[in-house]
Amino acid sequence: MSTRLDLTQDVGALTALIVDVESVSGHEKELADAVEEALRTLPHLTVDRDGDSIVARTGLGRAERVVIAGHLDTVPLAGNLPSRVEGDLLYGCGTSDMKAGVAVALKLAAALQAPSRDVTYVFYDCEEIEAERNGLLRLSRSHPDWLAGDFAVLMEPTDGMIEGGCQGTLRAQIITRGKRAHSARSWFGVNAVHAAQPVLEILNAYEARLPVVDGLEYHEGLNAVAITGGVAGNVIPDECVVTVNYRFAPDLSLEDAQAHVSEVFRGFEVRFTDGAPAARPGLNHPVAAAFVDAVGGEPRAKLGWTDVSLFSSLGVPAVNYGPGDPNLAHQQGEFVSLEKIADCERGMLDWLA
Amino acid sequence: MSTRLDLTQDVGALTALIVDVESVSGHEKELADAVEEALRTLPHLTVDRDGDSIVARTGLGRAERVVIAGHLDTVPLAGNLPSRVEGDLLYGCGTSDMKAGVAVALKLAAALQAPSRDVTYVFYDCEEIEAERNGLLRLSRSHPDWLAGDFAVLMEPTDGMIEGGCQGTLRAQIITRGKRAHSARSWFGVNAVHAAQPVLEILNAYEARLPVVDGLEYHEGLNAVAITGGVAGNVIPDECVVTVNYRFAPDLSLEDAQAHVSEVFRGFEVRFTDGAPAARPGLNHPVAAAFVDAVGGEPRAKLGWTDVSLFSSLGVPAVNYGPGDPNLAHQQGEFVSLEKIADCERGMLDWLA
Repeated sequence: MSTRLDLTQDVGALTALIVDVESVSGHEKELADAVEEALRTLPHLTVDRDGDSIVARTGLGRAERVVIAGHLDTVPLAGNLPSRVEGDLLYGCGTSDMKAGVAVALKLAAALQAPSRDVTYVFYDCEEIEAERNGLLRLSRSHPDWLAGDFAVLMEPTDGMIEGGCQGTLRAQIITRGKRAHSARSWFGVNAVHAAQPVLEILNAYEARLPVVDGLEYHEGLNAVAITGGVAGNVIPDECVVTVNYRFAPDLSLEDAQAHVSEVFRGFEVRFTDGAPAARPGLNHPVAAAFVDAVGGEPRAKLGWTDVSLFSSLGVPAVNYGPGDPNLAHQQGEFVSLEKIADCERGMLDWLA
Repeated sequence: MSTRLDLTQDVGALTALIVDVESVSGHEKELADAVEEALRTLPHLTVDRDGDSIVARTGLGRAERVVIAGHLDTVPLAGNLPSRVEGDLLYGCGTSDMKAGVAVALKLAAALQAPSRDVTYVFYDCEEIEAERNGLLRLSRSHPDWLAGDFAVLMEPTDGMIEGGCQGTLRAQIITRGKRAHSARSWFGVNAVHAAQPVLEILNAYEARLPVVDGLEYHEGLNAVAITGGVAGNVIPDECVVTVNYRFAPDLSLEDAQAHVSEVFRGFEVRFTDGAPAARPGLNHPVAAAFVDAVGGEPRAKLGWTDVSLFSSLGVPAVNYGPGDPNLAHQQGEFVSLEKIADCERGMLDWLA
């Protein structure tokens, strides 16, 4: 089946049309084909494709270039297609996260034949699954030049708020060790689970920072996300592993964050298992200030980790801004307000027209 | 293949012969057949069989009856058969645990045509695997009368020491609960792993009892044997389970022990998962005193749980006493001292002749 996307129709109707093209992660081809075909009819854009990611760019020689990005994939269906409209609300898988944002970006791509800044539109695959398959990550490695710009807007659901930057994340194992023994003669052993008590004390006593970075207040957190220990029901455990997750504000690099965790758990064996850097909101850049003026509202800090960090790693400050409600993402009853989609389109047009 | 056991030969040679009949748990038939056949040639014994468990009894109308028991099975082979002798040591799978004891019991069965007490010899299957398949447990349910007596000696490896009774064991889950949240916004959740800190504090502060029961000093223990919690790497855990193992002295019933654990963890959710009662040493009984006099040495408390508890549940006080070294049980290099086997046989003959 081939779908034709008519980019002249109303943004709400376009959202519904896109929602009805199933595009669960790894199965974005049909939607990517449709997006590519629609964009290739627009003479003011240069269109490139890498797998199921499509990049379209104006080349007007403007002083600034902005990137508008969104992922094409959704989480698995939950009996919530086809879409349906009730009053102002459009229901269906991917409505909020984030085909409404994709529809706005496509509308802008068609409407802005001579935008005030050069614009790069990025539609990518595999955002909802393991990071290594993420289409934006792939582009950042294979074609970083396609993603170049002075500022990026990732149209993830933010309920129409500007969410600046993102917090970083790292996981570390805090390991306590002991000595096995039969539990009937436990005094011949050393209990590694008992030895984890001070690790939990440190976590309970930890006071999270709320630093202000580029004018936005972040909220850190250091938490156990897992604990495991035990050999058998009659054996004193010789190892206990507390896995902690540190969410850190963008005034720290990943290395700073690791050093902090090492310091907090000084004296314990600490093993870092994964991590992703934070991204500064970049709202002090003139093009960002113009964006904030155009779309309105008070920017807030993005606490979760998002793909804005990938832009940040390429030197492109980025924000999240989209019409969907983030609290509805990944829910069976996911919906989006048609009015909010239109508001979002209007704000973006004001900024770039 | 059918094996003939000559019960007139030296106890060390008999041990070697029995060791060389493979009898890994569940595969005791060949050895059980040989034991049954040898015992049926002895006119002073009544022989019964249940599966691969053999029970042989004198019926002399003596004032007291003692039970001498041992299991026929071994842990899996580890390239340690056939047996071999080096100096005083007999090497091979099951030498220490517990075919040396089985050989002593078979020698007694043949030699004691008119013992001073009536004697019941019990040779059973499946001791080394899950409790529910244990042959002695099966007999205690199907033929408790076969196991009746005033005192029992379980010829498990004790290095020639008398080990009285056994400690009980129970396992309980101490559960803390919280509320899930995304770890990027952890303050919306309640961390159940952090909430386990006081559980570990209680365990670290716990002082184990060393009670004296029937003249023997026991040594209790309360220990975490497992801890588990965690949903995903980015989720605040809503449950943490600390599994504790309480090893308790025979002055407590299983119910007493459960009440103690509930009291220690008062205020926490406590779920008992399994338990087995302790057994009193019963050394205050005259027949036991005569046994101690005959075999010599200072009786000590048995700390691990053993099948003496099954005798205890039938109202038969029981001790562990055998020639093997318990520290060698289940090891690839398992061996037994031929001299100790002979000492053990001599002590038992002194007691019962």
